[in-house]
Amino acid sequence: MKRDFAVWCKQLQSEMESLLLSHLPPVTQTPQRLHEAMHYAVLDGGKRVRPLLVFAAGTLFDAPRDAMERAASAVEMIHAYSLVHDDMPCMDDDALRRGKPTVHKRYDEATALLVGDALQAQAFEVLAGGALDAQRKVAMLRLLAHAAGSSGMCGGQAIDLSAVGTLLSRDGLEQMHQLKTGALLEASVMLGALAGKQLLAAEIAALKAYADAIGLAFQVVDDILDAVSDSATLGKTAGKDAANHKPTYVSILGLEASQQLAEKLRQDAHSALLPFGDNAQRLLELADLIVQRKT
Amino acid sequence: MKRDFAVWCKQLQSEMESLLLSHLPPVTQTPQRLHEAMHYAVLDGGKRVRPLLVFAAGTLFDAPRDAMERAASAVEMIHAYSLVHDDMPCMDDDALRRGKPTVHKRYDEATALLVGDALQAQAFEVLAGGALDAQRKVAMLRLLAHAAGSSGMCGGQAIDLSAVGTLLSRDGLEQMHQLKTGALLEASVMLGALAGKQLLAAEIAALKAYADAIGLAFQVVDDILDAVSDSATLGKTAGKDAANHKPTYVSILGLEASQQLAEKLRQDAHSALLPFGDNAQRLLELADLIVQRKT
Repeated sequence: MKRDFAVWCKQLQSEMESLLLSHLPPVTQTPQRLHEAMHYAVLDGGKRVRPLLVFAAGTLFDAPRDAMERAASAVEMIHAYSLVHDDMPCMDDDALRRGKPTVHKRYDEATALLVGDALQAQAFEVLAGGALDAQRKVAMLRLLAHAAGSSGMCGGQAIDLSAVGTLLSRDGLEQMHQLKTGALLEASVMLGALAGKQLLAAEIAALKAYADAIGLAFQVVDDILDAVSDSATLGKTAGKDAANHKPTYVSILGLEASQQLAEKLRQDAHSALLPFGDNAQRLLELADLIVQRKT
Repeated sequence: MKRDFAVWCKQLQSEMESLLLSHLPPVTQTPQRLHEAMHYAVLDGGKRVRPLLVFAAGTLFDAPRDAMERAASAVEMIHAYSLVHDDMPCMDDDALRRGKPTVHKRYDEATALLVGDALQAQAFEVLAGGALDAQRKVAMLRLLAHAAGSSGMCGGQAIDLSAVGTLLSRDGLEQMHQLKTGALLEASVMLGALAGKQLLAAEIAALKAYADAIGLAFQVVDDILDAVSDSATLGKTAGKDAANHKPTYVSILGLEASQQLAEKLRQDAHSALLPFGDNAQRLLELADLIVQRKT
């Protein structure tokens, strides 16, 4: 990882803490326990990959700073809510997330349910605010709602649920991940771009190809890390997929072929960015980060 | 209830079925089980009070038909999702809703969780669609997100959770209900109005006073019905509040004073509508319906 990219990531990750804080209701506001739990779920954790994608794509298309900040906060809130609900006993029943007790462990199940529900609403409220022209905002709101709902993230979760203990084909696995993880990663790229100058059809297609590649790569690498890492390194329970009899890239393709696939997807992402030249440097580096990460 | 009002209600309630159906993803679309469960949660049930409020307020301000339909569908989806999550074992743990098994009983808990999550996203997607000018849409989206989140409905649920087994003051009870039920009822009125012609400050204030009164009246009557009705009539478990040691208007004020309060709130709602004259007839009749309903 090049030094200036590392500095850029670190700077934005740090800024995201204060941005997310400023876009959450204060803990002093009633109901305080719910607001405290929302802060617990969102702040102090994660690599903030989705916000980094928003900023990288937004900068490429000259998006105003406040619009990128709002989009980055909104998409991260959607991601955080999905983790809170995903960890609940009726879903993955997980006790550890980002090295800390999950929300239903630290608080209780009912609070975890409400934290997720309230964070989703908060995401749309944040995205609907600010000074960006209304037409762009509406396009961004539609995009995020579609990516978060049953044709996107929630739909992927539902397929994931029904796949436990079954033999999923590689196509089936790909469709599940395209929805479960890919939809929100793609939305991050597109939200950043939509906040900026008018996009040409060819630019939209190139961005989508890039987003498709990194969305899939993200999940392939997740599967690899779940198979080869320990819980302490991951900050979440490792080896969970195998224990839950969940189909993964590693279980279907094997470890080596999964690693080759991740590398191929990284190159696909790079190729998709060729039309943007040097301006797409950050998106290119983010593709590397997604594939080469260790947690 | 006057005959033409009854016809109006019945007509809209029937139209809402096909509208909601048209704004939900089809059950033939993957993931089919999730989409089927979303249909189960939303269709064929309820008095559709919130959509009726949207249409009554929207008509008063000459809102375009499609915008009212989208707002009515969105607000009903938010309401339906809140019922699905509210019925789950970690919340009210209820087996019966609108005379049918609750979603987690009919399907499973994980599906109920995802149904609620996906319906919330769907509500925002529906509201962001259509031909209404973008500025109005953004105002409506912000309003609905705020009413649904931790400063509205979810916040009220959180206060409700923390109030179980405690002695809540009448003010505390009122604050809880203002958020839990009132926020979305008020949003229904304001969404209808915002979809129409530009509102004067005095009109906004009058509508808010009306919405406050019916929001509170709705809950007072809910508490009365929970105390005096049986489950078969209500289509949900009766006597639940007392069994759960939840503070209610009936437990704090007694039955008779609660009935007097409901009647006073009905009159307050009527008074608030005076500036609109005969044009507010439907809103006025809806206040009567909310107070005089038997289920």
